[in-house]
Amino acid sequence: MTPLKLGMVGGGQGAFIGGVHRMAARLDGHWTLIAGAFSSDPARAHASAKQLGVAPDRSYDSFEQMAAQEATRDDRIDAVSIVTPNHLHAPAAIAFLKAGIPVICDKPLTATEDQAIELAKVVRSTGTPFFLTHNYTGYPLIREAREMIARGDLGQIRVIQAEYAQDWLAEAIETDGQKQAAWRTDPAKSGAGGAIGDIGTHALNLINFVTGEAPSALSADLQSFVSGRKLDDNAHIMLRFDSGARGMIWVSQVAVGCENGLRIRVFGEKAGLEWAQEDPNRMKFSELGRPTRWLTRAGAGTGALATRIPAGHPEGYLEAFATLYTEIAQSLQGDQTAARLIPGLQDGLAGMTFITKCVRSTAKDGQWVNLGDGAL
Amino acid sequence: MTPLKLGMVGGGQGAFIGGVHRMAARLDGHWTLIAGAFSSDPARAHASAKQLGVAPDRSYDSFEQMAAQEATRDDRIDAVSIVTPNHLHAPAAIAFLKAGIPVICDKPLTATEDQAIELAKVVRSTGTPFFLTHNYTGYPLIREAREMIARGDLGQIRVIQAEYAQDWLAEAIETDGQKQAAWRTDPAKSGAGGAIGDIGTHALNLINFVTGEAPSALSADLQSFVSGRKLDDNAHIMLRFDSGARGMIWVSQVAVGCENGLRIRVFGEKAGLEWAQEDPNRMKFSELGRPTRWLTRAGAGTGALATRIPAGHPEGYLEAFATLYTEIAQSLQGDQTAARLIPGLQDGLAGMTFITKCVRSTAKDGQWVNLGDGAL
Amino acid sequence: MTPLKLGMVGGGQGAFIGGVHRMAARLDGHWTLIAGAFSSDPARAHASAKQLGVAPDRSYDSFEQMAAQEATRDDRIDAVSIVTPNHLHAPAAIAFLKAGIPVICDKPLTATEDQAIELAKVVRSTGTPFFLTHNYTGYPLIREAREMIARGDLGQIRVIQAEYAQDWLAEAIETDGQKQAAWRTDPAKSGAGGAIGDIGTHALNLINFVTGEAPSALSADLQSFVSGRKLDDNAHIMLRFDSGARGMIWVSQVAVGCENGLRIRVFGEKAGLEWAQEDPNRMKFSELGRPTRWLTRAGAGTGALATRIPAGHPEGYLEAFATLYTEIAQSLQGDQTAARLIPGLQDGLAGMTFITKCVRSTAKDGQWVNLGDGAL
Amino acid sequence: MTPLKLGMVGGGQGAFIGGVHRMAARLDGHWTLIAGAFSSDPARAHASAKQLGVAPDRSYDSFEQMAAQEATRDDRIDAVSIVTPNHLHAPAAIAFLKAGIPVICDKPLTATEDQAIELAKVVRSTGTPFFLTHNYTGYPLIREAREMIARGDLGQIRVIQAEYAQDWLAEAIETDGQKQAAWRTDPAKSGAGGAIGDIGTHALNLINFVTGEAPSALSADLQSFVSGRKLDDNAHIMLRFDSGARGMIWVSQVAVGCENGLRIRVFGEKAGLEWAQEDPNRMKFSELGRPTRWLTRAGAGTGALATRIPAGHPEGYLEAFATLYTEIAQSLQGDQTAARLIPGLQDGLAGMTFITKCVRSTAKDGQWVNLGDGAL
Repeated sequence: MTPLKLGMVGGGQGAFIGGVHRMAARLDGHWTLIAGAFSSDPARAHASAKQLGVAPDRSYDSFEQMAAQEATRDDRIDAVSIVTPNHLHAPAAIAFLKAGIPVICDKPLTATEDQAIELAKVVRSTGTPFFLTHNYTGYPLIREAREMIARGDLGQIRVIQAEYAQDWLAEAIETDGQKQAAWRTDPAKSGAGGAIGDIGTHALNLINFVTGEAPSALSADLQSFVSGRKLDDNAHIMLRFDSGARGMIWVSQVAVGCENGLRIRVFGEKAGLEWAQEDPNRMKFSELGRPTRWLTRAGAGTGALATRIPAGHPEGYLEAFATLYTEIAQSLQGDQTAARLIPGLQDGLAGMTFITKCVRSTAKDGQWVNLGDGAL
Repeated sequence: MTPLKLGMVGGGQGAFIGGVHRMAARLDGHWTLIAGAFSSDPARAHASAKQLGVAPDRSYDSFEQMAAQEATRDDRIDAVSIVTPNHLHAPAAIAFLKAGIPVICDKPLTATEDQAIELAKVVRSTGTPFFLTHNYTGYPLIREAREMIARGDLGQIRVIQAEYAQDWLAEAIETDGQKQAAWRTDPAKSGAGGAIGDIGTHALNLINFVTGEAPSALSADLQSFVSGRKLDDNAHIMLRFDSGARGMIWVSQVAVGCENGLRIRVFGEKAGLEWAQEDPNRMKFSELGRPTRWLTRAGAGTGALATRIPAGHPEGYLEAFATLYTEIAQSLQGDQTAARLIPGLQDGLAGMTFITKCVRSTAKDGQWVNLGDGAL
Repeated sequence: MTPLKLGMVGGGQGAFIGGVHRMAARLDGHWTLIAGAFSSDPARAHASAKQLGVAPDRSYDSFEQMAAQEATRDDRIDAVSIVTPNHLHAPAAIAFLKAGIPVICDKPLTATEDQAIELAKVVRSTGTPFFLTHNYTGYPLIREAREMIARGDLGQIRVIQAEYAQDWLAEAIETDGQKQAAWRTDPAKSGAGGAIGDIGTHALNLINFVTGEAPSALSADLQSFVSGRKLDDNAHIMLRFDSGARGMIWVSQVAVGCENGLRIRVFGEKAGLEWAQEDPNRMKFSELGRPTRWLTRAGAGTGALATRIPAGHPEGYLEAFATLYTEIAQSLQGDQTAARLIPGLQDGLAGMTFITKCVRSTAKDGQWVNLGDGAL
Repeated sequence: MTPLKLGMVGGGQGAFIGGVHRMAARLDGHWTLIAGAFSSDPARAHASAKQLGVAPDRSYDSFEQMAAQEATRDDRIDAVSIVTPNHLHAPAAIAFLKAGIPVICDKPLTATEDQAIELAKVVRSTGTPFFLTHNYTGYPLIREAREMIARGDLGQIRVIQAEYAQDWLAEAIETDGQKQAAWRTDPAKSGAGGAIGDIGTHALNLINFVTGEAPSALSADLQSFVSGRKLDDNAHIMLRFDSGARGMIWVSQVAVGCENGLRIRVFGEKAGLEWAQEDPNRMKFSELGRPTRWLTRAGAGTGALATRIPAGHPEGYLEAFATLYTEIAQSLQGDQTAARLIPGLQDGLAGMTFITKCVRSTAKDGQWVNLGDGAL
């Protein structure tokens, strides 16, 4: 297994989603990050590259330069991740597609319809692979839901309810220098949609992915609640599907108390299901006239689609484990702070004493046994 | 940032926890796996090495050989992970410690008290770093709980309730060739403790880590429910602490319906808290006479200890993202099956149309707008 | 405290909501049922009266007769409950209002707009008290929510999400003789609205009650999914409020897996809250930038509005208690089956032994004590 | 249906459980309260009687007087409820039993073992019916659980975990004049057990009721955490059953954040189940190797044992309904405050307009329709 070579456009210091892409790329060991144009500001780009362990000759001033030069190398990257604000998706993607380098692009596709049309032409004319990271499609139970619906477990679909509620834009933080908020609420960088572009497209995509149906018509009521904001921060949308199904989407970035509340509910003639991103390891499944079942990721009665660890180990399990590995690395490199929390010999001895004394107390019919008198 | 070099003992084909260690080591980019003795069966060890991308000259027949040879190399490993059954922890760890190579050891420390005593001597005499992967200490909210208790948010601790319930050993699967079950229920490989060693030590460690207190005495009632099983598969334990606190631990591997039910509840004079591993992104915190609060990982009112992603993105978020990256890699390498589920251009165009039509419907006061008539 | 005298129209054998009204009227001891026209079928009416302990001379053939005769009695009823299908609400209510007898009417008000207009005229011209049992307004935490919003805890309201989802009409059970389904899906008895009348009006009323705001405009998409059904069984509705708030209502009686899923979420500038009828003893309350709190009925931080029992005793507690009292009554009247489950002396002795032995075991430092050797 | 005549000992002003008994007795209409010795203080007793609508000649100075006089009446009570502090259970019960009047006694049976022995003798010698209100046995899903276990759905029982955690005695409120706390922490009134008597006996009873098994031995660790308290406020207990099952009980009245946390989990060879009193309308049921099901009260797949209302209507539904009836009664009697929250005509008209406009908007393909322009 030789990892593929990955490049990245955007994702330098101060960015959010770039770091997520890098962790995701590392997790299974299929990718190594070796090149990047990490910022539109060259100084920041190169500083980021250094921090990320990318060699100076693969750190570029701009995505144009990167596409041009990578295309000429024998050891060129196998794909590029584009993790910039929306308005740069199209120009960056087009540059790499024309250079014959596969593109992994964050959503939404572009900032404007015109950009989308142009990008689509280039994808089709070049034939270079193009991927869009609608990441919620990667959840194991979302894939389970898709399979269940595809094989008819729910029967004819009638009602689809999707929502994506957050509260981080409940106040005008874009005027306080919050970088993530600033570009998302700026029509020049984000496009015609605010919340509907940033998170509404996720809800739409999840509907498509899970049910296999795309809406044929919609009726919308976009609203901007925060004074001075130019793009929608709340949206109510009713949907109709050719199949006869009906749906609703609620999208909000001002719903106080909601962190990242993406949720989908699908009801068919025979059964209904419900899944929420904030509790992704289980899914409610109800057949008409039977008790509701809670399917768990990799648990009884589910396929083990896209899973890495057993049932009952929520996927954060890996991150907790990784935290130890990271702190061990830091500790070995001399960081005493990191060492502070890592379990070690004493913890192991305490565990051994525990085992021994449990066995001993049981053997003495439950007599209380002191833990401090052992040889350990 | 140059990654450290990692070796591994155990964790070859058919193993469970080795793969978890490798993913954890990769996630933050601090480690590269470059050496291993992946099995006590040399043929299986080398096949595993090949699959893992470890060079043949760093794939060893045995941990003894590995410790000896690695110790002599200039580019020797920075640490070794020991992920074997319990009875090999001590000999493997001792070999590397004596070779001056830091050890990352899975729990419990060893299979027997004698091994533990010997290992402790070697750790102390060599001074080589030794780490134990009580991985549950890496959860962000567990660290939050530890800080809260340390700074007195709960007041004097009175009652500690911990439990760790599973059901995978509810039947005698160790007699059916299930490798994970076989060694865990074999006193020769697992030691004197069954469930109490395998998962009880986690519960104990979590108590220690979170409260800063270790029990001073215990009264235990171990039981083996499955006919023919030699080690405990259920344990009831009462605890006393020097501080005056009292506690209980329930450990079970026959509790039907429990997947990986590790849970801790701590009650002090002023407040109580509760955290469950299967729902790790939130923690209940109740101050006397005030409404219960649910703290969320990286959410309002919590520190962002050991977190990688924002509140509301349960940590499985990274895994879902990683699944896309993995399938993209597989797709680029010609795997058509992998390509089947990856979002792409069409999904992006659908999203753009959605944005455009939402804006248009709103502009027309909610008129239903068809989605199929766009330029995209 | 002398109970008031209650009469009832409808609610005979085979009915649902009439029995609920009777239990509700009894619970606090303020009412005694003494008269009724329990069915439009006189034979069924009188049989029902007998079963309910209503004297023959207060059991009437029709509501017209009942209103006329009760009005002339010195010991006439203090109020009448109207619990018929919708199309009879108006004529029955009008008869009693004109007779000067206060009316307690089930929702929705009437079957048609014309009836509503006529009824309103009579209420206004007679001045006789008229009450509508939008029962969800009686929940303690709903009243808490109303007070919180009224005093500004949420700030200016922005978004209101209400839903009421059931699944009992997922199939065409109205064609199978199910009486409750038959009249609810019959425009002649139910009026122009199906699900929107039956449960949508509850959702609307809850919005009004909790927020103090009524919508000023709506955009609706009603649908009838079950083949042959004449009234809506699913409805998607977008709302606008004069205050600038926006809302959505989803109503369904075909959402498989939903039993009685009434839920309301309100988001203001400063805070948000959420309450679900199926989990009515707690309410989520989130202030911007602070951890979410779960308020509990009668619990810390809430007023004890409309509560009967302490926090932590879900209101079903009373019903469980009542079941014992009912079975005791039945047992004393010779019903051996009822006696089967009632706790008695042996249970009490077991409890006393338990207490004694717990104290004894503790006194002997946790020694196991047999329970079978006591004097009890 | 003629209601039975009920008497009561205790339960006067300032008491808690007496009011619960009265509401429970009224709910189904099987009982009428007509006599009582409501307090050991005659003045308080008679004032309470007046408030409860009990005639002066049936309000007694003492339970001795009450038992003696009621026994001689033709219209004597059919049963007496004893709802005093524990130390009076035995003398009061004995007085009525000897008078031939059936007794409904609150738990625990008595304050001391000696009292229990004496009471048992009287019950057995008189043959008068004696009932103990272990009210948690009345929950529908508890009865469901009992039936499931009795018919073997769980197979041979292995592990039973019960807990009952509260926090109302986390501080020494018994020294501040809190009447409920005062007698419960006073050995002279409560007996040898504090928390174990008050709530531990409920946990024990629930184990017995649900599993049909009684423990044969126990090992206990009682503790009193609050300084100066004479009886246990926390208890850890391990149990053994003759069948081979093992169990634990945790009882606490100092577990900050717990309101009335009674919970039982039972694990057998084939399946496990879990029920919590604070969420009593659903029960988790897991068969080995199958997805977990959540059974709901009166829902799909459950019998409708001891239920009054349909699935999805949590049992508090009745209380909310009752609140309206009570406020209507109060309103009709001139209480303007009560009238403030009762829905009425305007709410009904709003609902009718809503229905009409939903239908109209749908007919106009979702056009926004104003709600303020209707004839209503």
